Amino acid sequence: MTQPIVDTLCVIGPGLIGSSVLRRARLDSAIARETIAVDRDEQVCARVCELDLADIITTDALRGAAEADVVMLCVPVGAIATVAAEILPVMKPGAILTDVGSTRRSVVDAIAPHLRPDVAYVPAHPMAGTEHSGPDAGFATLFENRWCLLTPLENTSSKAIATIEALWHAMGARTRVMDIDHHDRICAIVSHVPHLLAFSICHTADTLADELRSEVLDFAASGFRDFTRIAASDPIMWRDIFLNNREAILEMLERFAQDAQKMATAIREGDEATIVSSVERGRAIRRSLIENRQA
Amino acid sequence: MTQPIVDTLCVIGPGLIGSSVLRRARLDSAIARETIAVDRDEQVCARVCELDLADIITTDALRGAAEADVVMLCVPVGAIATVAAEILPVMKPGAILTDVGSTRRSVVDAIAPHLRPDVAYVPAHPMAGTEHSGPDAGFATLFENRWCLLTPLENTSSKAIATIEALWHAMGARTRVMDIDHHDRICAIVSHVPHLLAFSICHTADTLADELRSEVLDFAASGFRDFTRIAASDPIMWRDIFLNNREAILEMLERFAQDAQKMATAIREGDEATIVSSVERGRAIRRSLIENRQA
Repeated sequence: MTQPIVDTLCVIGPGLIGSSVLRRARLDSAIARETIAVDRDEQVCARVCELDLADIITTDALRGAAEADVVMLCVPVGAIATVAAEILPVMKPGAILTDVGSTRRSVVDAIAPHLRPDVAYVPAHPMAGTEHSGPDAGFATLFENRWCLLTPLENTSSKAIATIEALWHAMGARTRVMDIDHHDRICAIVSHVPHLLAFSICHTADTLADELRSEVLDFAASGFRDFTRIAASDPIMWRDIFLNNREAILEMLERFAQDAQKMATAIREGDEATIVSSVERGRAIRRSLIENRQA
Repeated sequence: MTQPIVDTLCVIGPGLIGSSVLRRARLDSAIARETIAVDRDEQVCARVCELDLADIITTDALRGAAEADVVMLCVPVGAIATVAAEILPVMKPGAILTDVGSTRRSVVDAIAPHLRPDVAYVPAHPMAGTEHSGPDAGFATLFENRWCLLTPLENTSSKAIATIEALWHAMGARTRVMDIDHHDRICAIVSHVPHLLAFSICHTADTLADELRSEVLDFAASGFRDFTRIAASDPIMWRDIFLNNREAILEMLERFAQDAQKMATAIREGDEATIVSSVERGRAIRRSLIENRQA
């Protein structure tokens, strides 16, 4: 029998992402010999136990971290650095710390002072998810054909990077290694700003006069309906993403606001050429996505 | 055999919507005894002929309109008033003029001076569509379970309204009669502003530096991908919608911009409560839609 990718894998925070990792590991013995699930909430641990998602299930993060060869932090972005600072001192020499956060710069900067030379840190961001959360929301194929973006530090060992890449390949994902700030700007435009716009337009609809508001719900055409789908996500997760990637988000939102303002001016002034060219750009982007098989 | 709803139905502009109406009429003889398709483009007429979508197919709008009991204008919003002014003089006394435009106030105002007392005008807006266009894009079930909003004038005969309602019910749609300006504000928030935002964010992505732009296409997560779907629509149709509903669109866009600005300020200032409450409003709206079976 060949060696598994990880001997002991500890997932801290078995929510949508973490429980999907554990489910996949349950199906494929090449991923880890032993799995540990940690959650500070006893009820979550009880549910993870009922679902039989891991070999060891505990509320004690230090115990889980001390035994693991890879510790994967699947907690909200705002909690990653706190949990990392807590567990790093007890991790085994040669072990790897990784995470699954959607923003990188603020997390990496917060973790940096706590890092040890004998524990590699490999930040990873699997671009997958649904609007649901908690251990019941996960499923083993969540990462199938999705991207996982790795943003290792300059001095991270290539062996540790290769292990985390192999882990995500075994989950069915494709991986790409990239610069931290580049990552944050890409995610701001492809995910964070679209979500911000979706939350905002739901807010706008919600503040309309009562009669109009109820009819908005009756007649939600495809446009608004699609927006609400991406606005249905977890509030704490999004609070943390917005606060931890604020610079890139505010930069991209500012660019967007200028583009939307140009459209508004074109509409006000009846500038047909600008309107048509803007719509045509949207179609071109859509076509590129279809050619890239991302749509 | 019972009487069909319409004796002779003339569809001017057999594109996505018009050809779907004709396809449905082909399947259900209770809709019309005879169908006429009019398009000024000979190639479109040839294609409609190949697809066998109507009994009579002609480039001559006057001929089609003169023979019809109901004339349905399925041309872009910006062309409705021009075509109406051209055909109204030749329509039969007692005939009904209807249309399928997505905006109402500007169209109704433009048609008003040309109306005849012996021809009823019943503006109708079927809330259905895809990002595709032309006679090949239509299908007979396009209107199934979708809303069709009727915005008749004060003096429109209830008999004419009932005929157009019956026609849409036969297409599988639900109908609602409402005030013209109310219609335009609802459609601004549920459809026109969401589309404007989608076009704008595609534009923003398209103007990023080359490397970033190509990675946006690689990593389009669910947020951006959903936006591009609604941004893939016909440029002429959207130009006309934006220009013909500019007042309501600019009003709703202004409200939206204020809400988005509030979110940006909350992110900049680290105001967690405002961010969480905004995300929670989005979820609540989504839940309402699911309860209304619109999602």
